[in-house]
Amino acid sequence: MAPTLSARRLAAVIGELDADGPAYVEITDRIRVAALDGRIADGARLPSERELAAVLGVSRTTTSRVYAELRDAGLIESRRGSGSTIALPLEASTASSLISTSTDPDALAFTYSAPVGPPGMARAFERACEKLPSLLATSGYLPDGLPVLRELIAEQYRRRGLPTDPEQIIVTNGAMGAISLLARTLLSPGDRVLVEGSSYPHAHDAIVASGGRLTPLPVGGSPWDIESMTAALAAGRHTMTYLIPDFHNPTASVMTLAEREAWGRELDRHGVIAVVDESMREVNLDGIDLPPSLAAFDPSAVLVGSSSKTYWGGLRVGWLRAPKHLVMTLVQARMIGDLGTSAFDQMVVAELLADGGQTAAAGRAALRAGRDHLLAELAERLPEVEAPCPAGGLSVWVTLPGHISTRLCAAAERRKLLLTPGPRFFTQASRLGERHTRIPYAHSPEQLSEAVARLRLALDEVQGGRAAPPRPSDASLDLIA
Amino acid sequence: MAPTLSARRLAAVIGELDADGPAYVEITDRIRVAALDGRIADGARLPSERELAAVLGVSRTTTSRVYAELRDAGLIESRRGSGSTIALPLEASTASSLISTSTDPDALAFTYSAPVGPPGMARAFERACEKLPSLLATSGYLPDGLPVLRELIAEQYRRRGLPTDPEQIIVTNGAMGAISLLARTLLSPGDRVLVEGSSYPHAHDAIVASGGRLTPLPVGGSPWDIESMTAALAAGRHTMTYLIPDFHNPTASVMTLAEREAWGRELDRHGVIAVVDESMREVNLDGIDLPPSLAAFDPSAVLVGSSSKTYWGGLRVGWLRAPKHLVMTLVQARMIGDLGTSAFDQMVVAELLADGGQTAAAGRAALRAGRDHLLAELAERLPEVEAPCPAGGLSVWVTLPGHISTRLCAAAERRKLLLTPGPRFFTQASRLGERHTRIPYAHSPEQLSEAVARLRLALDEVQGGRAAPPRPSDASLDLIA
Repeated sequence: MAPTLSARRLAAVIGELDADGPAYVEITDRIRVAALDGRIADGARLPSERELAAVLGVSRTTTSRVYAELRDAGLIESRRGSGSTIALPLEASTASSLISTSTDPDALAFTYSAPVGPPGMARAFERACEKLPSLLATSGYLPDGLPVLRELIAEQYRRRGLPTDPEQIIVTNGAMGAISLLARTLLSPGDRVLVEGSSYPHAHDAIVASGGRLTPLPVGGSPWDIESMTAALAAGRHTMTYLIPDFHNPTASVMTLAEREAWGRELDRHGVIAVVDESMREVNLDGIDLPPSLAAFDPSAVLVGSSSKTYWGGLRVGWLRAPKHLVMTLVQARMIGDLGTSAFDQMVVAELLADGGQTAAAGRAALRAGRDHLLAELAERLPEVEAPCPAGGLSVWVTLPGHISTRLCAAAERRKLLLTPGPRFFTQASRLGERHTRIPYAHSPEQLSEAVARLRLALDEVQGGRAAPPRPSDASLDLIA
Repeated sequence: MAPTLSARRLAAVIGELDADGPAYVEITDRIRVAALDGRIADGARLPSERELAAVLGVSRTTTSRVYAELRDAGLIESRRGSGSTIALPLEASTASSLISTSTDPDALAFTYSAPVGPPGMARAFERACEKLPSLLATSGYLPDGLPVLRELIAEQYRRRGLPTDPEQIIVTNGAMGAISLLARTLLSPGDRVLVEGSSYPHAHDAIVASGGRLTPLPVGGSPWDIESMTAALAAGRHTMTYLIPDFHNPTASVMTLAEREAWGRELDRHGVIAVVDESMREVNLDGIDLPPSLAAFDPSAVLVGSSSKTYWGGLRVGWLRAPKHLVMTLVQARMIGDLGTSAFDQMVVAELLADGGQTAAAGRAALRAGRDHLLAELAERLPEVEAPCPAGGLSVWVTLPGHISTRLCAAAERRKLLLTPGPRFFTQASRLGERHTRIPYAHSPEQLSEAVARLRLALDEVQGGRAAPPRPSDASLDLIA
C-alpha cells in the first residue's frame, strides 16, 4: 500500500528529456503516461517538488508546474504535510495501458494485443453447449483442469516431441494466471530472476510483486545473447528465468536453435527454473519452422500456453506444463488463488483443440490480413517509421524517427488513439525505449487505417515541434473516455 | 519452496492423541490427512523421527513406524542426510482437501460444498449464446468486468440499501479470486489480520501466503464475540479482518445486528480494512431476515460476492465491491494476476441476475431438499451425532460423539467417502476440531443416503474401537482414486 517513490526512481521512469519544447510539458506527459500504464502504482507517494527538481536538474518552478498540471488533470492529490500521491480517477480503470475496454466508440484502443473471435468460434460454443448437461451435473470445480482438456493439451505437447502426461498440465486463467501462479509459488523475496531486457511488462510486474529481483539482459541485439546470459548466471545465483522464445513480445524475435541449446544447458547446470512463455508459438503467421521448445534442452522447464492469443482474448484459458515434482505444489497454491478456471470455457477450448486446427487457422488468416494491412498503411503514410514484418505474434515493434515515443503516444491520445509507449516494455529505464512503440494488428482493416491516420497527425504534431502544451484535463478525459 | 516443519509445529497439526488404539496409527492418519487437505504443504521437510518422538512424548520406535507407513503409502520421500519430505503422488491433485474431482464413480467427494447447476442454468447459457456475436466482436479482455454485469451487481447492492456505482465493482475469478487479490494487494509481510477462530481455510491460507499474521478469535461461542474483538484490536494494530457474517462457513452462524454495529464501529475507528465474505448471503434457504451488511456500519468495508454458491461451482464468477479509493489499486494488481474473468461466464451470470431470481430460487429449493434429506438420514441413522439445522449455506456442521474427527474421516475414506476433518477449519490447532466435521448437502438424495450409510459404518468402526490398523497403501489409493 502507498509505496513511496524516491526522486531518483521517478527520474528513471521519466527518462532522459528531449531538447525540444518546454520541459514541464514533457515531464508531465511522462509521469501521466507512466501512471496510467501502471509503471507508477496508484497510491504511490511522489517525491517533493524540490527533490525532483534537484535530481532532474530543472528549476523548482518547473516541477511545481508539473505537479500543478497533474493535480488539475485529476491524477494526483496533494495534502499539506503529506505531499502528493497518485490518485487515478475511477474511470481510468478502463484506460489502463496494455488493457483497455474504453466504451467511447470513437476511441481506438491499441494498448493490448488480443484477437477478436475468428470464424468458427461461435460453432465451438455451440458444440460445447451440447455437452453442457454433463458439466452441469457436476460441481464444476476443476482446480487442475477439465480432464478432457488436460489430455488434449498433453497430446499437443507429445505431437511436438515432448513426452507429457495429462497430470503435468494445470489449466489456469490465461497465460497470465500461469505466470502469476509460478511467480507466487516458486519465488521467495529477494530471489533473482533473469529476464529479457524488453518483455511483456505484466509478467515482470508479477515477478516483482512476488519479491523477485529482475536481472535484465542487454537490449539491442538478440534478446537472448549467450555471453550475457552465461555471465549473469556466473555472477550470482538465480532462482528463475522468464523467457518468450517464440515471437517474443514485443520484438517478435525468435530464439535460434543454438541459443536454445546453450540456454537449456546453462539453466539446467545452474538449477534455474525456466518459465518459458510459449503463448505466441501457435500464432505462427507465416508458418516458419520454429526450433524445438526450450524444454527439449532443459527437461525441468515449465512451459506456459494460452488459448487467448490463438483463439480469442475472452477465453480466459491458459495452462502450464510442469515437471512432475512441481505439480502438486502448484495445484495446492492455485487453490488459494482462484480454485479453478471456468468449466465452460475449458469445454470450448477442448472443442477448439479437437477441430483439427480449423479455427486456429482461421484466426491466423485474420491476423495475417491485419498485419499486412497495417504494414502497407505504415509504409504508405508513415515512411519515416521502421516497421519490420513479424513472422508471428500479434503486433509490430516499430522504430520511431527519434526518441519521441511518450510524446507521440500523448499526441495520439489527444486523437483518441491509445498506444503503449515503448519504455513500458523495457525492464530498466533505457533511452532506447523512447525510440519504439508497439502497434498491435488484431483489429479490423478500417480500425487499422484509422489508427495509422491518427498516428500520422500525431507524428506531424511532434515532428513539427508544434507540440502545443497539452491541456491535461482534456487530455486525460480523452484517454479515459 | 520446501518449507521446514519444526517438530513443535507438526505436533500442533497432529493435535492431542486419543487414548484408544495404537499411537502410530493415529499419528500416521493425522499426518496423512493433513498432507492431503493442504495443512502440510507438498514438499515440506519433516522433523527427524527423534525430534518428533521427543515433542509428542512417544517412543522413537513409534515415530519410526509412522514414517515407514507414510513412506510405504507413497506420501513421503526419505533421503539419507536430508531427512523426509512430503511428496504427494501426482494423482493426489484430484483428492486435495476441500476440492475433489475424483473420477472413481464409486467415490463420494464430500470435501467441497458447491452446487450442481440448478434447473434454469442451461437456459441462461442459451440466452448468453444469443449474445455471443457481440462479445466475439471484441477482444474479450475485461480486467474490471463486463459493463452490463457490473451494473447488475451494483443494482443488487443498491436494492439492499448500499449506494453503489458500477465502477466500485470488480469481477473476479470466484469469491476466492477476490479474497486472494485483496490479500495480495492490501497486506504487507507481518501485517496482522483478525479472523474468526474457525473459517473457510483457503481464505486463511491466502492471507498467510501474502505474509499476513492471523489473530484468531476464540471458538465455542459466537464467532464474533465483541469483547474478544475489542480486546484484540486494542492489543495490537491490525491491517485487515476477514469475516463471513452470513451463514458462516463452516458453522452456519449469522452475525447479529448488535455484533454488526459493534464490529463496524470498532473497525472503522481503528482503520482496519474489513473484507466481508458475503458469498453465502443469497443461499438463504429458509428466507430468514438477515441484518444489513457490515458495510452499512463500516463504509470502508470491502464486500465479496459470488455466483458459484448461488448458482453453480463451474461459473468462476465472483466479485468485490470496494470503496472508491481502492478500486484502481485493485484493478492494477488484478492485471498481474490474471487479466480478467471469462467473458462468456460473465454474460451467463448477467442473464442469471436479470431473470428475476427464478434460477436462484430453483437452486435454493434443490439445496433445501438436500439439507432436509441429509438431516433426516442423520437423525435416523446417526442419532449420536448432533446435526443442527442451518438456515442457509451449503453444509451441516456436526458435533461428533468424541474427539474422533480424523479417525472417522480416515475410516470413511476407506469406504470411499471423502470428508474434511474438523481441524482443517480451525485457525489454531484446537482439540475442539476433533469434535466436528462438515457435511455438505449439495448432492443428490441418493448420494446423501449412501454417504450417511458409509459414515454409519465408519462410526461403528471407530466407536467399536475396532479401528484396524489402516493399510496405508490401499487407503491412499482409495482416497486418490
